[in-house]
Amino acid sequence: MPVNYQTPVASQLKPVRGVRLGIAQAAIRKLDRKDLLLIELAAGARVAGVFTRNRFCAAPVQVCQRHLGNTDRPGEIRALLINTGVANAGTGEPGWLAARATCAAVAQHLSLRPEQVLPFSTGVILEPLPVERIEAGLPACIADLGADHWFEAAHAIMTTDTVAKAASRQIDIGGRTITITGIAKGAGMIRPNMATMLGFVATDAAVSQAALARMVREAADESFNCVTVDGDTSTNDSFILIATGGAGGAEIGESSADYALLAEALTDVARELAQAIVRDGEGATKYIRIVVEGGDNRAECKAVGYAIAHSPLVKTAFFASDPNLGRILAAIGNAGIADLDVSRIRMWLDDVLVSCDGGRNPDYREEDGARVMRQAEITIRVDLGRGGAGATVWTCDFSYDYVKINADYRS
Amino acid sequence: MPVNYQTPVASQLKPVRGVRLGIAQAAIRKLDRKDLLLIELAAGARVAGVFTRNRFCAAPVQVCQRHLGNTDRPGEIRALLINTGVANAGTGEPGWLAARATCAAVAQHLSLRPEQVLPFSTGVILEPLPVERIEAGLPACIADLGADHWFEAAHAIMTTDTVAKAASRQIDIGGRTITITGIAKGAGMIRPNMATMLGFVATDAAVSQAALARMVREAADESFNCVTVDGDTSTNDSFILIATGGAGGAEIGESSADYALLAEALTDVARELAQAIVRDGEGATKYIRIVVEGGDNRAECKAVGYAIAHSPLVKTAFFASDPNLGRILAAIGNAGIADLDVSRIRMWLDDVLVSCDGGRNPDYREEDGARVMRQAEITIRVDLGRGGAGATVWTCDFSYDYVKINADYRS
Repeated sequence: MPVNYQTPVASQLKPVRGVRLGIAQAAIRKLDRKDLLLIELAAGARVAGVFTRNRFCAAPVQVCQRHLGNTDRPGEIRALLINTGVANAGTGEPGWLAARATCAAVAQHLSLRPEQVLPFSTGVILEPLPVERIEAGLPACIADLGADHWFEAAHAIMTTDTVAKAASRQIDIGGRTITITGIAKGAGMIRPNMATMLGFVATDAAVSQAALARMVREAADESFNCVTVDGDTSTNDSFILIATGGAGGAEIGESSADYALLAEALTDVARELAQAIVRDGEGATKYIRIVVEGGDNRAECKAVGYAIAHSPLVKTAFFASDPNLGRILAAIGNAGIADLDVSRIRMWLDDVLVSCDGGRNPDYREEDGARVMRQAEITIRVDLGRGGAGATVWTCDFSYDYVKINADYRS
Repeated sequence: MPVNYQTPVASQLKPVRGVRLGIAQAAIRKLDRKDLLLIELAAGARVAGVFTRNRFCAAPVQVCQRHLGNTDRPGEIRALLINTGVANAGTGEPGWLAARATCAAVAQHLSLRPEQVLPFSTGVILEPLPVERIEAGLPACIADLGADHWFEAAHAIMTTDTVAKAASRQIDIGGRTITITGIAKGAGMIRPNMATMLGFVATDAAVSQAALARMVREAADESFNCVTVDGDTSTNDSFILIATGGAGGAEIGESSADYALLAEALTDVARELAQAIVRDGEGATKYIRIVVEGGDNRAECKAVGYAIAHSPLVKTAFFASDPNLGRILAAIGNAGIADLDVSRIRMWLDDVLVSCDGGRNPDYREEDGARVMRQAEITIRVDLGRGGAGATVWTCDFSYDYVKINADYRS
């Protein structure tokens, strides 16, 4: 069960004008579950994305990058096809051809060119994509297309997730109601380096291609690129931002007065989805916020945050609610900052000052640490005492169930 | 229980002329266990060491570096004091003073200067060293001093180790029998970056200080710096090489004909100890050898080896004996090699070719992978197809017991 997270009810997920979603059971890996999602976009919708930096990036990621590459003609992308069960990663040239074949199948049904379709896959690596089952499932997806299917779509992209992740916001821009709705999935192989496993956020605002491309990078950097479950960057990470323009109004460009307003709302939705992934991380029983301050630059603050977040010893101590907090110092010491002066570092657990002057705070009492460690949500705060930069990383603990889930995943 | 490792019996551990060891129960953290070891060296013994690169390096590591720093006067070090239970790390200025106080206590008993004593600690971080208990235990250590106490010494430095680690070799150099005997401990927070938690290897060969300093770096690079249990580099890693000269014979310098012979034997002992740490890694049920070949340079081969060895998803798949081998490709893709061409990579599990041409080997059969995965010892071989360099990393799997051990460690 996730830590303090509940999927919104269907009525809380507002439709985005210009976006319809259709779901089907295609028996890709398991019978009897919804595993295929088609997202259809109205003509003129703009799409931008960021993708995994894993060198073994999946075939669908490569196809997406190719199809999105034609920035001279924004507004060409008209459909997204997402399957679970098989990742189509580590599949070589046949994998690329398989991903292209699914695009061609969608194109044929919707009277598009294959280049107007983006494919996404998640699931087991190193297994071939069952193209014929996906093709067979497409008609059911198309028959199901509807603007109010975000809730079902969030369920259709789950793998080891225990709950669906979705979020919706409405803001006012120039007297018009702008809707932003998004879905995402986790729950393991989560250390996004560009974006998370799969995240899709759509708005009906009108946005220029350049502004959208910048928004997706900025939103990823403040959301999916700040979370980790197990430190394993996936082969399939993709975060996609869609702007349909269905709400009307002037197009928002990079220098528009409304850019910041929309970007902040988009980032807010992305952050909620990214945090939901951590709250539902494989086997998670604790939700941990790591705030690093006083760094020379944001990169070193993130490095310290991730060093703490990836330490199996830190994560198991949190699982045990054991304030064995020296493990956090050891992790900070391993963050790769060569000239770190440990005597300037201060470390808090929530409001409890645990460490200063290179050692234990003389006033620290074990019962104070133990009290915080028993909570389901905990903030680790580290002041590096070097400068004015900061960064936040969100993670979860490491439990028996993480081992169980990943020892059983394929069976 | 460790994977295919048995502690040598006491008679297999040959005494090293010029080295005596004394063990005591000092009740540092637990009553009723041997937790204090004193190693006394004959006058003129040479000592060299490599230490953790963790920035939160422990007070005893800092004191060791200071006391070993006076290379103008090699042969000054006459005693090593090792305690378990408390790491004396994350203890700031009081920690430094405590480590120095234990050196002073040893010096007083043995009529030395404090700078002739090296202190070592292992155990919980962020807790003060109980200096008075160590002082109280010293007379028992001194009364126990004996040349044939290596077996007991190996037991005295254990923490979460399930078995003691020790190794002994005898070689002939110039007609003289040279003995090399060493001990080490694991079993968690193991990703040595210079050396392992604690490793001590002594020989009665006569070696120049410069040659010894080079041998300790070379031996560490081929042994302790090639293993990982959980990716957490400890605050206390120390690997110490002692050459007493007690066997007589000409001093071996960096350009001596016998340098390579002795260095290889020392490295052999260090490698056996390092591998024993992995075989007895916390919760280990599998022993995994990761051989990376065809790299541009050794550093990138090691990076690939560690990326595989540190992936929780890879480690849990090995625990489950599940040939979910796409996880290995994903780990390779995350090793940080920006220009890696995945279509040139080949990957084997023992003699089974699993992956080539960026995907699954068409002849690979799941039952072949499953057969290898059921073994207790497994070799992953990766050919990067880029050049002629290689490196080997040893690691273990990730089990329920790893979580259990580290959730219970302090209780």
